[in-house]
Amino acid sequence: MFQIKAKDGLARVGELNIRGKKITTPTIAVVVNPNKMTVPIKDLKDFDLIITNSYIIKSSKSRKEIEKKGLHKFFRWNKPIYTDSGTFQMYSIGDARITNEETLEFQKKIRSDIITPLDVFTFPDDDYTTAKRKLEETFKRIEAAKEMKEDRLLCQPIQGGKFLDLRKKACSKVYGDIAAIGGIVPLMEKYNFKDLVDIIMTCKMSLPQNIPIHAFGAGNPQIFALLVAMGVDIFDSAAYALYASRGAYMTIEKIIDINELKEMHELPCTCDVCKGRSPSEMTEELIARHNLNVTLDEIRKIRVAIKGGRFFEFLVNRARLHADIYSAYIHLLKEYGKFMEEFVSLKKKKAPHFLGMETKLRPDVKVALRLYKERVGSKVNPSFKEVFPFNMLGGENVFKFSKKEFSDMKRIEKLVDFQFGKGIGKKVLKGAVIEKSRKTGRIRRILKKGGVYATIRPGDGRIVFGDEGMRDIFKLAKDYYVKIDKEAVPFVKKGKSVFCKFVKDVGSFLAGDQVAIVDEKGEYIGNGDALLSPKEIMDFDSGVAVVVRKN
Amino acid sequence: MFQIKAKDGLARVGELNIRGKKITTPTIAVVVNPNKMTVPIKDLKDFDLIITNSYIIKSSKSRKEIEKKGLHKFFRWNKPIYTDSGTFQMYSIGDARITNEETLEFQKKIRSDIITPLDVFTFPDDDYTTAKRKLEETFKRIEAAKEMKEDRLLCQPIQGGKFLDLRKKACSKVYGDIAAIGGIVPLMEKYNFKDLVDIIMTCKMSLPQNIPIHAFGAGNPQIFALLVAMGVDIFDSAAYALYASRGAYMTIEKIIDINELKEMHELPCTCDVCKGRSPSEMTEELIARHNLNVTLDEIRKIRVAIKGGRFFEFLVNRARLHADIYSAYIHLLKEYGKFMEEFVSLKKKKAPHFLGMETKLRPDVKVALRLYKERVGSKVNPSFKEVFPFNMLGGENVFKFSKKEFSDMKRIEKLVDFQFGKGIGKKVLKGAVIEKSRKTGRIRRILKKGGVYATIRPGDGRIVFGDEGMRDIFKLAKDYYVKIDKEAVPFVKKGKSVFCKFVKDVGSFLAGDQVAIVDEKGEYIGNGDALLSPKEIMDFDSGVAVVVRKN
Repeated sequence: MFQIKAKDGLARVGELNIRGKKITTPTIAVVVNPNKMTVPIKDLKDFDLIITNSYIIKSSKSRKEIEKKGLHKFFRWNKPIYTDSGTFQMYSIGDARITNEETLEFQKKIRSDIITPLDVFTFPDDDYTTAKRKLEETFKRIEAAKEMKEDRLLCQPIQGGKFLDLRKKACSKVYGDIAAIGGIVPLMEKYNFKDLVDIIMTCKMSLPQNIPIHAFGAGNPQIFALLVAMGVDIFDSAAYALYASRGAYMTIEKIIDINELKEMHELPCTCDVCKGRSPSEMTEELIARHNLNVTLDEIRKIRVAIKGGRFFEFLVNRARLHADIYSAYIHLLKEYGKFMEEFVSLKKKKAPHFLGMETKLRPDVKVALRLYKERVGSKVNPSFKEVFPFNMLGGENVFKFSKKEFSDMKRIEKLVDFQFGKGIGKKVLKGAVIEKSRKTGRIRRILKKGGVYATIRPGDGRIVFGDEGMRDIFKLAKDYYVKIDKEAVPFVKKGKSVFCKFVKDVGSFLAGDQVAIVDEKGEYIGNGDALLSPKEIMDFDSGVAVVVRKN
Repeated sequence: MFQIKAKDGLARVGELNIRGKKITTPTIAVVVNPNKMTVPIKDLKDFDLIITNSYIIKSSKSRKEIEKKGLHKFFRWNKPIYTDSGTFQMYSIGDARITNEETLEFQKKIRSDIITPLDVFTFPDDDYTTAKRKLEETFKRIEAAKEMKEDRLLCQPIQGGKFLDLRKKACSKVYGDIAAIGGIVPLMEKYNFKDLVDIIMTCKMSLPQNIPIHAFGAGNPQIFALLVAMGVDIFDSAAYALYASRGAYMTIEKIIDINELKEMHELPCTCDVCKGRSPSEMTEELIARHNLNVTLDEIRKIRVAIKGGRFFEFLVNRARLHADIYSAYIHLLKEYGKFMEEFVSLKKKKAPHFLGMETKLRPDVKVALRLYKERVGSKVNPSFKEVFPFNMLGGENVFKFSKKEFSDMKRIEKLVDFQFGKGIGKKVLKGAVIEKSRKTGRIRRILKKGGVYATIRPGDGRIVFGDEGMRDIFKLAKDYYVKIDKEAVPFVKKGKSVFCKFVKDVGSFLAGDQVAIVDEKGEYIGNGDALLSPKEIMDFDSGVAVVVRKN
């Protein structure tokens, strides 16, 4: 139902299959209200998901029509539709006029694709006992919803207020298909992003990796990158319309009052709404359309940054949009960096950038330095300056390089040690010969046993073994393996990717690492690059685990 | 001819009058080549200036037509047109087929609005003697051009290669209306932005403030903010088309190869070119159009950030687009911060943001801390937490606050000292009474002599004196004045702004400071907020110097 297509740390581009319709995450569920359509549905075609409130629909004048036609026909929208139960609305008017069963039946009746039980909303100032009681009641309701959902996706609301152990508990039993972290709007409204980080990370660390995470009510694109860095997959936004209704014009750098822009006679944007217009022409609807463009733009930029392996650089930038985002980001790196380290990859197309002192806190930098220290030595040898992340632009601010370069052979041996374990390089490279590029003078290939034993990958400078080489590596680096079901063996032999569902067991390595693929008896049958981290491989049932290298 | 409309440090929004047509700076001169129009002129209507190469036109097949019609009719463009002499093209093909007089005559003939003499191009590896000889020859040519220019604007090329003293010399005599800093393309191509900072700042520090600065060949929008921070007003860009010709798709975060985006099936943009398109649909022309949108977007965002007084926050963000931009930006703050301090303002609508350790290097922060230390004390009193820049979000990372708050009266006295000089507060506030807001409990007004003597401005927490108060202040704070021509006195008395051309002399203060306006005899006649710094007021002949406060 959900799979990872590309990732960079905890940030991931995924594919979510909603009753046969596939959408790409991170994505935004655009909030639509049948009583007030600021932007007509037909103009939302660049988005993949809308969300509407079943509670509002139930009391709207269009109720009868929607019950009859279903949401898709009513809205003329053939992509997926997500419904919220209206918990928040109900509690904010303090009148629980509907039961869990009623809302779920109603959501089914109006043909929602993703249904949400009536969770018991936890207020930020609820005390522990109250929050706990609400959580237990919510669990019962999710359980009931699971019985009723049929082929629909079920949203599991994660409550618990500010009590992190309750949030953890709320994530301990997973019945739903999407984990929707709720009760965070008050924090976001107060720009209390530090507490937001604690809540989201507590959930992320407690949930299995294969469940998509929805940050309920997160609609300000300025914080999308921070949320994605923590593994959030879905946002929803009424913000585009709410902001527009009070004249708030979004730019990724700052939300600006349209009256301020009117004084400046300038719109700082070239989206299809703003390019030829002046601020005085901006109606509420046009501001809403523009705000949607900014939101879409940011989602697209985030996806492209993840796919391009430069999400961290992107995040560094977005962390500077506001002092409160910046402090939350530093908090994330300091408090949760250790957990994030498990998900990094050292396989990168491009060198990283030094962009301020927190570059030292990058989880991939920390992992690399730890591995280097354990396996190679304390000071980084300058011959590693072509190896990620030591190839960093401005890296002298982060890494202490020793003075004397390794000889060519030692350099390759140590590179193998860095990638697979101390002392392995010397053993596997016995009798090997180094071949350099005549043009650049750089080491390109390692020859042994009359063939190409390994190559050096441009971009990140890592060594990539051929089949012969990887067979030898696996004898020494026992943790670098993925064990697959016998059913999948013939496919791997043909060079097809290893899918998560056929993985029986994994060793210990990083996403991006070259690993041996072994059968149930532990016999080497091929190799490839892990697309995911071991935990992700084990948690996911769907999608590619290892991209197999053809020989 | 040139005036400042809004400023934030050296960054400025200006109005440049080109033969009666007014354009807003910072701006980009879009490079158009009659032999290869990647984007038709009619689609450049969102831009205000185009630049074309007279040398290319001279040898183009359209030459006759252009000579006959003039550039404006030929291009169907009724906004200003800038022509380059073609120095670079001539030197790069190594064949000087034209003299200075010939190119100037030709530029006049084709009815250019801004003409450029044939300067002698300095290569980055020219030795000092060669560079110096070229500079002297260039001076002669500029001098000749000045004789010929008539009502046209004259571009004064600033050469000197990497020799900063030659750059300084090239700025020591100003004959032109625009200073075009040349020979920087090779540096920008190599991402050597640190040397670029040295060159631009050397020029900026040597040129008078009223001359618009053109960074010749700067077309990558990623470095616009850095250049604007140094006082650059004009960019020119062939980059939109050159990049497009090699499939380079601009985003402000990164220039991306269109083939990489094709693999990702996603365009990270919502401009009017990209919103409904997929990467595979992007032709060279469409990429060029998109690149122009990104360029325009950045120019607009920069102008809005300056007008909104939050340019530094914007710069902090843009400094993180690339490690080489980041290191150049830190170099700028460290090496040229002292010069930049002269141009800052402490009058701001919004609190500044702590966005990383270099926030301590902000010129306005450094000025404020120096003034505080000189006039109030070493540790910042917490009662200053509502005063810019001590009202910084995350300010505890930058300022050492003492523990005990000042009493209300002492607080206001010290605020006056901070703004106008040590000991002044106690003297002027003798007998004054503080009035607080009933709603917020904040100090709002200072009453004295039976009237409102001063108010506290929300936003930056500064004290603003009424006419009576400012009269008293000026008796003690002798440097806070602008002396005007007698001609202007009646206008000031009616509350009209003081224009630069009527200023005879200025004291010592910062842009944004409240100053007394005095007549030629030094008699107080009114007060207002300086829009510009003293140096800018003296250098400019046009535009507002002080916005007069009406009583």
